[in-house]
Amino acid sequence: MTVKIGIMGYGTIGKRIADAVMRMDDMELIGVIKQTPDYEGEVAISKGIKLYTYEDRVNKFEKAGIRVTGTINDLIKNVDVIIDATPDGVGAENKAKIYEPLGLRAIFQGGEEAEVADTSFNALANYDMAIGKRFIRVVSCNTTALSRLIGAFLIHGYKIRKVRAYLVRRGADPREFKKGPINDVVFNPATVPSHHGPDVQTVIPTIDIITMAVAVPTTMMHLHMVNIEFDGQVSKGEIMKILEETPRILLFNSASRKIESLAQIIEWARDLGRLRGDVMENALIEDSITVFQNELFLMQGVHQESIVVPENIDAVRAMFKLSSKWDSIRKTDLRLNLITTGKNYNLA
Amino acid sequence: MTVKIGIMGYGTIGKRIADAVMRMDDMELIGVIKQTPDYEGEVAISKGIKLYTYEDRVNKFEKAGIRVTGTINDLIKNVDVIIDATPDGVGAENKAKIYEPLGLRAIFQGGEEAEVADTSFNALANYDMAIGKRFIRVVSCNTTALSRLIGAFLIHGYKIRKVRAYLVRRGADPREFKKGPINDVVFNPATVPSHHGPDVQTVIPTIDIITMAVAVPTTMMHLHMVNIEFDGQVSKGEIMKILEETPRILLFNSASRKIESLAQIIEWARDLGRLRGDVMENALIEDSITVFQNELFLMQGVHQESIVVPENIDAVRAMFKLSSKWDSIRKTDLRLNLITTGKNYNLA
Amino acid sequence: MTVKIGIMGYGTIGKRIADAVMRMDDMELIGVIKQTPDYEGEVAISKGIKLYTYEDRVNKFEKAGIRVTGTINDLIKNVDVIIDATPDGVGAENKAKIYEPLGLRAIFQGGEEAEVADTSFNALANYDMAIGKRFIRVVSCNTTALSRLIGAFLIHGYKIRKVRAYLVRRGADPREFKKGPINDVVFNPATVPSHHGPDVQTVIPTIDIITMAVAVPTTMMHLHMVNIEFDGQVSKGEIMKILEETPRILLFNSASRKIESLAQIIEWARDLGRLRGDVMENALIEDSITVFQNELFLMQGVHQESIVVPENIDAVRAMFKLSSKWDSIRKTDLRLNLITTGKNYNLA
Amino acid sequence: MTVKIGIMGYGTIGKRIADAVMRMDDMELIGVIKQTPDYEGEVAISKGIKLYTYEDRVNKFEKAGIRVTGTINDLIKNVDVIIDATPDGVGAENKAKIYEPLGLRAIFQGGEEAEVADTSFNALANYDMAIGKRFIRVVSCNTTALSRLIGAFLIHGYKIRKVRAYLVRRGADPREFKKGPINDVVFNPATVPSHHGPDVQTVIPTIDIITMAVAVPTTMMHLHMVNIEFDGQVSKGEIMKILEETPRILLFNSASRKIESLAQIIEWARDLGRLRGDVMENALIEDSITVFQNELFLMQGVHQESIVVPENIDAVRAMFKLSSKWDSIRKTDLRLNLITTGKNYNLA
Ligand SMILES: NC(=O)c1ccc[n+]([C@@H]2O[C@H](COP(=O)([O-])OP(=O)(O)OC[C@H]3O[C@@H](n4cnc5c(N)ncnc54)[C@H](O)[C@@H]3O)[C@@H](O)[C@H]2O)c1
Ligand SMILES: NC(=O)c1ccc[n+]([C@@H]2O[C@H](COP(=O)([O-])OP(=O)(O)OC[C@H]3O[C@@H](n4cnc5c(N)ncnc54)[C@H](O)[C@@H]3O)[C@@H](O)[C@H]2O)c1
Ligand SMILES: NC(=O)c1ccc[n+]([C@@H]2O[C@H](COP(=O)([O-])OP(=O)(O)OC[C@H]3O[C@@H](n4cnc5c(N)ncnc54)[C@H](O)[C@@H]3O)[C@@H](O)[C@H]2O)c1
Ligand SMILES: NC(=O)c1ccc[n+]([C@@H]2O[C@H](COP(=O)([O-])OP(=O)(O)OC[C@H]3O[C@@H](n4cnc5c(N)ncnc54)[C@H](O)[C@@H]3O)[C@@H](O)[C@H]2O)c1
Repeated sequence: MTVKIGIMGYGTIGKRIADAVMRMDDMELIGVIKQTPDYEGEVAISKGIKLYTYEDRVNKFEKAGIRVTGTINDLIKNVDVIIDATPDGVGAENKAKIYEPLGLRAIFQGGEEAEVADTSFNALANYDMAIGKRFIRVVSCNTTALSRLIGAFLIHGYKIRKVRAYLVRRGADPREFKKGPINDVVFNPATVPSHHGPDVQTVIPTIDIITMAVAVPTTMMHLHMVNIEFDGQVSKGEIMKILEETPRILLFNSASRKIESLAQIIEWARDLGRLRGDVMENALIEDSITVFQNELFLMQGVHQESIVVPENIDAVRAMFKLSSKWDSIRKTDLRLNLITTGKNYNLA
Repeated sequence: MTVKIGIMGYGTIGKRIADAVMRMDDMELIGVIKQTPDYEGEVAISKGIKLYTYEDRVNKFEKAGIRVTGTINDLIKNVDVIIDATPDGVGAENKAKIYEPLGLRAIFQGGEEAEVADTSFNALANYDMAIGKRFIRVVSCNTTALSRLIGAFLIHGYKIRKVRAYLVRRGADPREFKKGPINDVVFNPATVPSHHGPDVQTVIPTIDIITMAVAVPTTMMHLHMVNIEFDGQVSKGEIMKILEETPRILLFNSASRKIESLAQIIEWARDLGRLRGDVMENALIEDSITVFQNELFLMQGVHQESIVVPENIDAVRAMFKLSSKWDSIRKTDLRLNLITTGKNYNLA
Repeated sequence: MTVKIGIMGYGTIGKRIADAVMRMDDMELIGVIKQTPDYEGEVAISKGIKLYTYEDRVNKFEKAGIRVTGTINDLIKNVDVIIDATPDGVGAENKAKIYEPLGLRAIFQGGEEAEVADTSFNALANYDMAIGKRFIRVVSCNTTALSRLIGAFLIHGYKIRKVRAYLVRRGADPREFKKGPINDVVFNPATVPSHHGPDVQTVIPTIDIITMAVAVPTTMMHLHMVNIEFDGQVSKGEIMKILEETPRILLFNSASRKIESLAQIIEWARDLGRLRGDVMENALIEDSITVFQNELFLMQGVHQESIVVPENIDAVRAMFKLSSKWDSIRKTDLRLNLITTGKNYNLA
Repeated sequence: MTVKIGIMGYGTIGKRIADAVMRMDDMELIGVIKQTPDYEGEVAISKGIKLYTYEDRVNKFEKAGIRVTGTINDLIKNVDVIIDATPDGVGAENKAKIYEPLGLRAIFQGGEEAEVADTSFNALANYDMAIGKRFIRVVSCNTTALSRLIGAFLIHGYKIRKVRAYLVRRGADPREFKKGPINDVVFNPATVPSHHGPDVQTVIPTIDIITMAVAVPTTMMHLHMVNIEFDGQVSKGEIMKILEETPRILLFNSASRKIESLAQIIEWARDLGRLRGDVMENALIEDSITVFQNELFLMQGVHQESIVVPENIDAVRAMFKLSSKWDSIRKTDLRLNLITTGKNYNLA
């Protein structure tokens, strides 16, 4: 079966999911719904992506000389599922106005409330929960990274007493010049916990996790400083082995490979020729991984623009029962050119 | 007794200590030693501060039209103590080359190794350790802030099981345009613990503390996300009371006072008319103070440019036995116009 | 006569005008109108400034424990003029809804269209145009700086063929953390000329001026690169003399005083003890002043937060005919502690 | 003939030239000389690039597990030319120590003084000057962009009276986290002209050009605001036509394509799938192109990381007389996937 996919909202996340879908052999990208004619639309067309828009906006596209294949209605009747990548809250509106009335399936992003979907989703942590569901919500970038990290240990049977994670968030995506801060650190939020802890619990309900977050003037990646307390002592060797073999987790050694900052992780991806310089894996700083008795400390970089992309692909497979968990994860990783060497796709 | 003070190194820290010394009635600023004629020297002179320099540099000052009162030798023979605020490592060289040979007393800053001095110093946490000492090292800005915070609880008899602190450091001081990062988060360092934890232990040897740190593109303040685990449950009410009454700790309510970022804390100080917009107190975000059983979470802003200034003043008093601990702290705070309302200067 | 002043809008500009008015002996600050209880209001009260608000907001202030002296109506009936420092466009609304119906005089800021007032105003360039006017608009920070610079030459009888100015704008004021850009240069606007050129012509109608502008990730100051073409050759010596003696223009020598960036100009003001580190003068980079035949090149820093403050004071004097032009300028400068040494207050 | 190429210095510029050389069919990349084992070396190897290093550094590479094919001597004897992309000034040292003694040909970058080579080079502006030369210097990113722009008009027989260009420079490349400024605008330099004007004259000696420059906290691209005064009136239509058809110049319409900042130009390149998101063309802002009588105003973005790459390729062809000017330019553009639609490769 080939799942026919429409994408609603073609911004940071939507355009990446579009490119990813086109690389899959069990999915077909029917088109994307855009509101505004702009350079992102132009480039889409140059890649062979079909644009659809709202009836009252066809005009605008014509005036701008950007070809539109049809209206939203044309698209909708040809797809099996909509991947909704509109801004926070719009997905819920779309569900009420469009997807529910038309009996459409949909996958939402992390900017929506958990209630928008039948389940919140992270491939590594709870793939099976999403099998056959009609509405799935792929959790946000920060939650995805935390869920993968925690999931990696749980899969191996580790007992986690608590997780305390401290998030240093990028202020804006690279092209969002209207957002700040410029020379500031923003309490984001001032209260504890930030929403990320509870959000991880929508994927891994049993975990004791508290998070704090601030926003800083960068566009690169988020950075997490994580403290995990296990039930009993752990060995650094075992921890390392788990992290090395878990898919979608990459170790960067700052000392030996001279990767001393988040921008240098992105530089690595640019040099490698990855599309847009994306890093869809958790970027763990290898030398930060430190064990004191039952406590683990580490830093990880989280590329907000792209980390949820493989999860959206897996969510489609779970929804349509295209593959089992590890088959889907492996397939996604291979086709997206993630690092698969040394990774174990037969975990748990 | 009036202690005669010379300041070696007139940069971010040195110039602030100079202004602070001039406000004290038990100290006299004899002069400052500068290497280079520049606008900072000009302004110093306009405030009535006497400049001294190295013999082979008198020329440069004359050429630049900046009056120099004498050479370093002239200054040294007229002072009781040198407060050394030169860059990291230069203080130790000065000790070996100048202070030790001449039998001079000296106070060093946190950029020096702990070994440079007889004791590391934080007024709240270990004032009495410094009484009568010949060489004292005022710990760095981050260590000062952590020592005050931890000290506040210890003074009240609280038992702390462990402290885990996550530091988001400003990349450079406002005028240091050569330093980055611009659009990046730097692992600073990648390894755990960062030096801050052990540095706190030079002041409070018994504390179990682990710190992690990154550097970000701001010049404003450092930000700490702190997790303290007490021995047994604590009540938020008591915690608040302690923090409210402890000198040099200020609470900023983000919700009610609309202080939502570090820059807004500095804005408050600018509006208040504080010299240079300095915030010499720990700036705790009141709404971040959260208690879960025996765990306390909070955020604090640390104004790197100025937080160690009151400690330098107190270090002088301890060295020369001018005042007892709380008398010194109160006097310093009053004369530097720190917030004293509601503060208890008879603690412990 | 003492002019009774109310200030509407207590943000970046409004709070500075309030402090300035309080330093004048021919003006009295009756109070300021604030919408929201916050730290800025708290600090105002601590300085003895009376807060007024809208009837339906008194509640909020009471709940926040911030004392309000009365409502906007109470204030308005006690003032001779309102200085309106509300955000762009609100001033015009206030004029239509409040000032005109009540027959109140008002001074507006540069965010309003020129049409809001009887004249646009810059003290140096067109003080006399504003004498006795009911509505005056103090032009924006960039326009103020350009008008002073051009005005300086015109006062001395120089003929200017054309001005071409290239503006590198700060993205946000220090406390505005929601505004960007973070890592970007924004075309601000992409079209030529930017609005600044025409805006200068509201003050100096005869000048041929074209401006271009971009916005960058700083909060410090704007920077102008200016090219002035005179009618005939000019001598650098004369140019320098004019700039040195013109009030509200300061020369900073980058080579000899080691002022190599905008942040170091602000550092100079902080060190000097200026309130909030403000620089109300045009900050010309002395070593940038270069003459090639009839062309003058130079760079100037423009402290957007404060440069219009002295102009607002002078605008009051012109409106109420309190002083002649140079008397007002001198008085303002003296009372605001601007640099007056070497300045000539009997120009033209 | 296939020219055998070695690259000395594998940083921002060197690694891009390496990738470009590998795409040419008349050149062969023999290897690159690296000093330090790091992630950039790892990625190079994964692309099939051979690493060489200094004798005394082979060890380091072995320890880091990064395969080195040989020492610098091994490389040098197998190449026809070295493209030197070491930091400013190192190229000149290499010339004296290595290239001259060994009779090697070399191409240098813009960080070297003009005297290092027999000619300074820009493909569009002076390709023919470089034919057969032994040492060629490809001018810097800013000079390249200005030379292309000016060259475009000169090729079409336009007479230029003078060029005045105002440069807003990025503070650092994306991965250079040690460089600032963070929240500042640096006079870069304070004096007029900046070195860029005279540098353009090494390529186009007859042009009257004066430049000013500042550095700002971004890593994206430089931005130029340019004012060109022609000898006599020009028509916007003709200007547009020239810019549209000139290779290596791209027009971005800010209004119709919603490209409102430099980061959005890079975003366009990322979306397009360009390696590293590079923009090797001058990025002209179409809506900024404005003509007033004989004056032209415009803004252009200059991607410092990549703009000189095609010029290095053309410099090789000129040096070895592989192709005539326009043949080389077209070949380079096609193989590097620059935009060639609408471009005229038979100019002049
Ligand atoms: N950017 C990130 O860092 C990130 C990371 C993970 C998850 N997410 C989540 O992904 C979702 C999308 O975020 P984004 O960053 O891609 O946003 P974005 O603003 O980059 O893109 C959203 C796009 O949706 C379009 N849009 C808005 N309303 C629409 C409508 N009614 N119909 C069609 N298109 C519409 C917008 O024009 C825009 O192009 C959000 O839920 C967000 O929380 C974002
Ligand atoms: N800036 C901060 O954030 C901060 C905070 C707390 C502690 N400290 C510590 O304070 C000390 C000073 O730091 P700073 O930030 O003020 O540095 P700074 O660079 O701003 O000032 C140092 C000054 O010392 C001068 N100097 C250098 N060598 C000298 C010599 N041999 N003789 C005389 N003067 C000399 C320099 O010219 C400069 O003016 C360091 O130990 C630093 O770690 C700094
Ligand atoms: N900030 C600058 O760089 C700068 C420089 C020169 C001129 N200006 C101009 O000064 C004016 C004010 O700008 P600002 O930067 O001070 O803005 P701001 O946002 O800092 O302050 C405006 C204040 O007005 C208040 N306000 C909004 N509506 C109000 C109302 N109806 N009644 C009472 N108060 C109200 C806001 O709450 C805010 O406190 C604008 O015209 C602006 O263009 C600003
Ligand atoms: N980065 C830019 O924006 C840019 C743009 C145009 C031109 N340039 C010019 O290109 C040249 C290179 O600049 P870059 O930005 O690529 O620098 P870079 O620092 O990114 O790379 C230089 C590389 O050379 C290596 N190196 C240093 N000394 C060496 C030696 N003796 N032998 C071998 N390798 C050595 C360094 O380790 C580094 O990897 C300079 O002349 C620069 O002015 C740079």
